[in-house]
Formats: sequence, structure tokens, C-alpha cells
Amino acid sequence: MSNLEPQASDRTENAARLRQQIIAAAGEHFSRYGYDKTTVSDLAREIGFSKAYIYKFFGSKQAIGEAICWNFLSIILDAVDSALVDAPSATEKMRRLIGVVANQGVRLFFEDRKLYEIASYSSAEKWQTTVRYGEGLRARLETILQEGRAAGEFERKTPADEVCRAILRVVQPFTNPLILQYGLDDAAEAATEVAALILRSLAP
Amino acid sequence: MSNLEPQASDRTENAARLRQQIIAAAGEHFSRYGYDKTTVSDLAREIGFSKAYIYKFFGSKQAIGEAICWNFLSIILDAVDSALVDAPSATEKMRRLIGVVANQGVRLFFEDRKLYEIASYSSAEKWQTTVRYGEGLRARLETILQEGRAAGEFERKTPADEVCRAILRVVQPFTNPLILQYGLDDAAEAATEVAALILRSLAP
Repeated sequence: MSNLEPQASDRTENAARLRQQIIAAAGEHFSRYGYDKTTVSDLAREIGFSKAYIYKFFGSKQAIGEAICWNFLSIILDAVDSALVDAPSATEKMRRLIGVVANQGVRLFFEDRKLYEIASYSSAEKWQTTVRYGEGLRARLETILQEGRAAGEFERKTPADEVCRAILRVVQPFTNPLILQYGLDDAAEAATEVAALILRSLAP
Repeated sequence: MSNLEPQASDRTENAARLRQQIIAAAGEHFSRYGYDKTTVSDLAREIGFSKAYIYKFFGSKQAIGEAICWNFLSIILDAVDSALVDAPSATEKMRRLIGVVANQGVRLFFEDRKLYEIASYSSAEKWQTTVRYGEGLRARLETILQEGRAAGEFERKTPADEVCRAILRVVQPFTNPLILQYGLDDAAEAATEVAALILRSLAP
């Protein structure tokens, strides 16, 4: 067996490289021609792979779209985590979480209108990536809430799961690209005011 | 002049009747074939009027769409007003306003998918009807806020215009048909939890 291991690992690395190559090429193609108008055949022709070869890595066009979409959404979650690291309190963490989600959303989705289209699909059709993004936000919210309650910054009467659910609902204008597109002009100011409303709702 | 007045008033009544007739026929036609796919020529043929005659009453297809849309949105505002009449406190008024907007929105927009399409256009393209609806909600919110502040139910530190703006933003998942469509399953429960969050934010 042992003499096979390096080969297996090479193969895995190679597969990961090929996946990334397909994602990158597809991202560029979607960005130029739109997700909706592109078929897997178009992508295969563009990349110079056979359609069957692409299907070895991704079961469908949606699977490629999801991978591209997750690249975007994970950038937002990473930016949130970076912003939380040195926040001095749960109050400040809550404020930063909402601000970063809004600002990164505006930046990422609207730098590239065509890629935004993929994010919209993901949101409208509840792709796994959107669900995963929502869960990522919920987990961070829960931690901040617990921390703020323990420190006496936040009230403790309302059930924690209700508080998290309600906050996730009211920040939808910033987390959902379908909504975000209608509030681009004042997303930063809106996020500040919504964060302030949420913090007033959390006051002990 | 006096002998002309009855005629002028007849003419006004007649014009109003014809407008309503066009709105009703157009509503039915849009509902069957969709707003997007219908032209003013289609409507004229359907109603049995000439296209030029329809243009006497409405400057464009959008103007007809706005009139239909306003019929919907004014039903929501009327339902809000009815619900507020016997509410015993500003707190209860706030709760009812949000509940009624969510429930009526779900009922009206989704009883008829094709008419919902018009409401979405209105929202996406910021038609005058959507702006007017938003102003109607804002005016009612302002009154409730003032009442609750005067009665000591709500805090008075945050500027009233900021509070109203922030509340209008967080109830967007219920007021904006583009967003409402993705939360139909649990709109009523969501509205209850968001209203509770808003009321916590208003606590003195």
C-alpha cells in the first residue's frame, strides 16, 4: 500500500487544482456572459476540457455556481471574523458584524454585476451555499449574544434562539443580495442605524 | 357658466368610471397573461377601446400598473388603519401595524402571482405607488411613536426620525414584495418576532 500513497495524494492535489481551474474559468465566463446564459458545454469549450471531464468534478452547472458563490460568501465571513478579533465588547462585536456584512456585501456583489447574478440565484433557490452562509452568521451571532449576556451588556429575558432568529431576519436587507441591490446608495448608513436599533433591543 | 357645471361634473364622473373600467380589465388581463408580456395594444383589443382612447386616461402601461398596484397597497393601509382604531396602547398599535402589513401582504400578493409581478415591478423600479406606500407607513409609524413617547411607553433619547427610518428598514421583509416572496412560509411568525424585537428596542 505504502508505495501508492504518494500517488493518491498527488491525485487528490491534482484534482483540487483542476477544480480550482474550472471554478476560475467558469467565474470569468459567468462574469462576462452571465450565469443564466452559460451552459456546461460553453464552459467546456472555453476551458478546453470535454464536458464529461467537467462533470467528473462538478455534478452540474449549479455545483460550479455554488463553488463560486461560496468563494464570495466565505470572504464575507472571514472579514467578519477579522473584524471581531480585537473588538473590546459584545456590543462592539454586534455593531461590527452588521457593518462588515453590509459593506462587504455591497463591495463583492456589486463590483461584478454578473457574479451578483449567481448570488441571487443562490438566494432565490436556497442553494446550500446560502444556507451555509446563514448558519455561519447565526453561529457568530449566538456567540456574541452569549458573551454579551454573560458580561451584563445584553438583556437575558428573551429566549436566545428567538433573539438570534429575529436579528437574522432584520439584517436580511444586508445579507440577502436580492434585497441588497435595492439599497446600495445608503447601505452603510442603513447598517449603522439598524445595528443601533438591534443594540437598543438588546439593552438590559 | 352655471349651465355648464352639471355637464362638467357628468364628464368627470364618466371619466372616473372609464378609468375604473380600464383598471379592472387591465388587472384581469395582467393577472392572466402577466404584466410584462402585455402591451397597451393587447389591453385595447381586450377592452374594445382604441389604443389612443386608453392613452387619454393613462399616459403609459406603467400608469395603469401603478393604478392597479395602488388599489392593492391602499387595501393594506386601510387594513392597518382599521386594526389601529381600537388598539389600547402605542405598543399594541406597533404590534398590529407590523402584523397586518405582513399578513395582508402575503394574502394580497400571493393570492394572485401575476398581480404580484406588478407589485414587484413597482418595488424594483421605485414607482410612485411604492414611494407613496412607504410614506403612508412612515406617517403611521411617526404617530404611534409620538403617542408611545408621550405615554411613557417608549424611550425618548433616540431621534424620532432615526427610529422611524430604522423600523421601516427592518420591516422591509414584510413591506417589500420582492423580499416577502422568499419568506411566505413563516411570515406571520416572523412578523411577531420582529415586532417583539422592535418593541424591545423602544423600551424606555
